[in-house]
Amino acid sequence: MTLPEATVQRLPIYLQCLEELSKDRVSSEELGAKAGLNPAQVRRDLHYLGSKGTRGVGYDATVLSQQLREALGLDQGWGVVIIGVGNLGTALANYGGFDERGFRVAGAFDADPDKVGRRVNGLTVEHVDGLAEAIVERDVHMAIITTPAGAAQGLVEMLAEAGVRSILSFAPAVVRVPPGVRYRRVDLSTELQVLSFYLSNGVG
Amino acid sequence: MTLPEATVQRLPIYLQCLEELSKDRVSSEELGAKAGLNPAQVRRDLHYLGSKGTRGVGYDATVLSQQLREALGLDQGWGVVIIGVGNLGTALANYGGFDERGFRVAGAFDADPDKVGRRVNGLTVEHVDGLAEAIVERDVHMAIITTPAGAAQGLVEMLAEAGVRSILSFAPAVVRVPPGVRYRRVDLSTELQVLSFYLSNGVG
Repeated sequence: MTLPEATVQRLPIYLQCLEELSKDRVSSEELGAKAGLNPAQVRRDLHYLGSKGTRGVGYDATVLSQQLREALGLDQGWGVVIIGVGNLGTALANYGGFDERGFRVAGAFDADPDKVGRRVNGLTVEHVDGLAEAIVERDVHMAIITTPAGAAQGLVEMLAEAGVRSILSFAPAVVRVPPGVRYRRVDLSTELQVLSFYLSNGVG
Repeated sequence: MTLPEATVQRLPIYLQCLEELSKDRVSSEELGAKAGLNPAQVRRDLHYLGSKGTRGVGYDATVLSQQLREALGLDQGWGVVIIGVGNLGTALANYGGFDERGFRVAGAFDADPDKVGRRVNGLTVEHVDGLAEAIVERDVHMAIITTPAGAAQGLVEMLAEAGVRSILSFAPAVVRVPPGVRYRRVDLSTELQVLSFYLSNGVG
């Protein structure tokens, strides 16, 4: 399925809005109001999934929810490892949203011997030395990196080699991404700077 | 200054690349290689700032860095409060990137009496009851929310009323945003679902 990148970004939001509305049928107006998007945008996005609302009746919520979950691959039970178990890694390991969305947290790793062996939300923190092996053995395709910036490049290369295809990184580093790997970087400082731009330039 | 949203998103990256390259002059090719963007894109983006590289010579790094910082408002010393001091809030309070980028962390707040009074990276956690007053007194215009989803809507309204114009939220909630407020939501589950989409649909 090929979708515009912006549409892909909105699919998880539609899924969440659908759950929060908790109705049998929803209109594009209701979804739009909940998501803060205009109804025409909602209809265009959902049309890509093959979902057509009926005028005056709306979408069947169960069907639409299933289409969203399928498009997002949430029924695949993708295995995820968390690398770096500082405050942020711990927050992530404790975050219930992964299970809820069908991801399987397959391990938490750290380079710090003091952290290895700690229990975090049912996981025992393992040493990164065992990471590559764990990825193969536990059929892991996704990784979340919360290490310091300096560790990111080496990790990304190692993960790619071990078969990880999707990386979500909180490490504040610009990384060369191996081909075939999808890399999303969440940089708190970048987010704040973007907000600062709009604050400084008077765009609310 | 009015810039395309995608350009705004890239400005912090250019700034970081510039610092990592640590040279007196940089070409759009060097910046592009570092940032993973093509040089024509780099030139277009920087042109918006009034920065023109000289063919064969590139950009003056000091001038460009200053233009980026000015556009991003990093010389304004915007005050930021952190609301919710769980693992994620603690990670944020300990994050050095805010100071480095010219933000002033003006307080950390929580509703949990057990957390009030704790020290986090030089800050003493305060009770949210004092938040509105602190925002006015400490000239705060930005807030970071890491509370549970249920608290987000009320907080956003209260923050807006107290004068906060920019909110970065990690609360997994869809929120109605008051006019004049810029709201950026970072949802770990959404990020992971977007990665899952590309993983499931074979787009690397």
